[in-house]
Amino acid sequence: MAKLCSLVRVEIVAVGTELLLGQIPDTNSQWLGERLAANGIASHFHQHVGDNHERIVAAFRIALSRSDAVIVCGGLGPTQDDITRAALAEIMGVDLVRHDDIVEKIRSFFDARGRTMSLNNLLQADVPAGATIIEQVRGTAPGLICPVGDQVMYAVPGVPYEMSDMFERAILPDLLNRQRAQGHTSVIVSRVLRTWGASESGLAEAVAERFDALVDSDRVTIAFLASGIEGIKVRITARGNDREHALALLDEEEQLVRALIEAAFGDIIFGLDDETMEHAIAQRLLARGLSLGLAESLTGGLIASRLVNVPGASQWFRGGIVSYASQVKFDLLNVTPGPVVSASAAQEMALGARALLGTDVALAVTGVAGPDEQDGQGPGTVFVGLAIGDEVTHVQLRVPGDRARVRSFSAIGALDALRRGLDRLA
Amino acid sequence: MAKLCSLVRVEIVAVGTELLLGQIPDTNSQWLGERLAANGIASHFHQHVGDNHERIVAAFRIALSRSDAVIVCGGLGPTQDDITRAALAEIMGVDLVRHDDIVEKIRSFFDARGRTMSLNNLLQADVPAGATIIEQVRGTAPGLICPVGDQVMYAVPGVPYEMSDMFERAILPDLLNRQRAQGHTSVIVSRVLRTWGASESGLAEAVAERFDALVDSDRVTIAFLASGIEGIKVRITARGNDREHALALLDEEEQLVRALIEAAFGDIIFGLDDETMEHAIAQRLLARGLSLGLAESLTGGLIASRLVNVPGASQWFRGGIVSYASQVKFDLLNVTPGPVVSASAAQEMALGARALLGTDVALAVTGVAGPDEQDGQGPGTVFVGLAIGDEVTHVQLRVPGDRARVRSFSAIGALDALRRGLDRLA
Repeated sequence: MAKLCSLVRVEIVAVGTELLLGQIPDTNSQWLGERLAANGIASHFHQHVGDNHERIVAAFRIALSRSDAVIVCGGLGPTQDDITRAALAEIMGVDLVRHDDIVEKIRSFFDARGRTMSLNNLLQADVPAGATIIEQVRGTAPGLICPVGDQVMYAVPGVPYEMSDMFERAILPDLLNRQRAQGHTSVIVSRVLRTWGASESGLAEAVAERFDALVDSDRVTIAFLASGIEGIKVRITARGNDREHALALLDEEEQLVRALIEAAFGDIIFGLDDETMEHAIAQRLLARGLSLGLAESLTGGLIASRLVNVPGASQWFRGGIVSYASQVKFDLLNVTPGPVVSASAAQEMALGARALLGTDVALAVTGVAGPDEQDGQGPGTVFVGLAIGDEVTHVQLRVPGDRARVRSFSAIGALDALRRGLDRLA
Repeated sequence: MAKLCSLVRVEIVAVGTELLLGQIPDTNSQWLGERLAANGIASHFHQHVGDNHERIVAAFRIALSRSDAVIVCGGLGPTQDDITRAALAEIMGVDLVRHDDIVEKIRSFFDARGRTMSLNNLLQADVPAGATIIEQVRGTAPGLICPVGDQVMYAVPGVPYEMSDMFERAILPDLLNRQRAQGHTSVIVSRVLRTWGASESGLAEAVAERFDALVDSDRVTIAFLASGIEGIKVRITARGNDREHALALLDEEEQLVRALIEAAFGDIIFGLDDETMEHAIAQRLLARGLSLGLAESLTGGLIASRLVNVPGASQWFRGGIVSYASQVKFDLLNVTPGPVVSASAAQEMALGARALLGTDVALAVTGVAGPDEQDGQGPGTVFVGLAIGDEVTHVQLRVPGDRARVRSFSAIGALDALRRGLDRLA
């Protein structure tokens, strides 16, 4: 991303002794790093520091000595070890001032949940004089924008889903304004091609020539982001003189990269940006007016729980049977008694689920999560059954990893099989 | 943790632009932090820095200015952006010297795999003059122990399983020797109480007196870790003259804190350390020899997918019905046609699931995930039905957040209701 770097350098400081002790992973710094990079904003350093006033202040001073802006995650909560506010006040050389309007918001947050607000929650209403509030819409602790000379420190809660909301809503726009104020007027846009079924090295090889051709480009970059069971993301970033120009470069590059990937692997791009595999399923079922039912064995409800995350799922998803015990497969789904890790069992499960739930389409999964083998099949052996119209088919998957990973890979693998099955329909 | 610090303060510096861009998570810092803490070695700061010589050197100087020892992860590989060796040489004020014996080891590593060694692999044989080698037994790049005055910098590859091997085999023993040389022999242990159903601020208030009494303790500390939908963790850490002494202090403190929490909130501690809510359920069902079935509406299989993560779940979990569409509730679970977001619907779902799945116990959940209301009920309104023995009961929950969070909170809230229900059995 070097060529696309901004004039504004952002440092991330994650606060919390639990990070130093390794009791929780610091997912915030990774998430922020990716979002900053996707917006062409440079981040040269990250720090972790514990809940200790002197050390937090020291970390802040170091960050301000080498970066233009600092994003502080954590230490804004209501407990005695949440001391980020005081450290910010010391850096700014100001006092903490209690904001009555924040007190009211916190109180109403508790009232709305029928809970009484303990007094130490009021600490969250203390704000360094001169700081701007980032309104909290998902919890109780507001975020802060603290000017330090012509530099700035942003403070957000450590709770990822509160942090990400405040970043998108308040911090990113402010950073982009600062870039423009520094005459950095070019616009950076990016798009992610979501793929499932190819390895990162395989994808890199497929687009290697194009990748090398762009090494010296100050306009377009390609990056590969391994996303665990969700597949490999191919992120294309383009910098243009204005938004229209940037989007034109992006569209052009997407066509090139898409062609290279599809030539090598076929139809493995299932979505763009935040589109998940379940969104791909939803679009296809809605377009064809079909309803879906499930029969899950080793995935144990994982597929259903992914599908109902799609808003409006009730328009096409009726439900599923979690047939974890074999007897449930026999009794409820009319699977022929016998081995249940087989292609025929998967197909019978799909037929049984479709009949029981009265749907147009049914997807079924059976297999071995491990660690022990079952029906003579080893861990990672998975059969997917698919009932669409008069067609009843199966797909066999071999998936790696421990119990949890085998289940997760099986869930998205089965959804991908359904995606391809629906695409085969006229 | 300030009061519990060891004499040797270790800083972790993870090197790699991919960390700043968020393309991969930094699992090494978390792992090292946990291992250091478990051995009573203090780690006050972590840094991430990209593959840039000046910035790496700057990060090293900062680390040496505030820590006694530095563990550097990454940048020891064979490619052009692996520049940790050169940065270490600059800090030490020495040249890089190529070690022929390392060259031979690397060459044989490739020979053994029938691969030809590309010349840039020889870079891995360059060692700062005066540094000691940590032999590489899992890959090609050796680790380094670099004396800097009376301080020390350790360098290990970023590949987790190469890093962890070198830490256990060479770095940890060296650090413990340094501690002993400074007459520091104490041991630090910690334990986490897992709670669900109380707010972080409420817990802090419940133990406030004890917390304050420990502020100046150099033996014991208490910390609160918000863990999203998984509840609040209360971490107790104790430092003893030896392991036995440390554990005794820990047990004593746990009894005190446990009593304060239970006095304020009752039975909200569901487990210790890594024990999840589903483990608490599994223990109780196994102890009573009971089987479980589910009926899930708004949670859409989320509860089932959590339960099957417990190894041996097949001993007590038979399956579940994901009755997402109302018609499925009526047809399969014999719920009385009408509003399905109600206490009676939840109880009928539990009875229906128990009959259909032939289990001893059944748990059912119905409610409104939102954003729209349903059956005149607003988002976050959730009814949990519980069928145990002859007893059929319900619990109403009010849960916050968007669709995904309402579902997640409903799932763990329902499991907590089941936990309490099972505890009510003789």
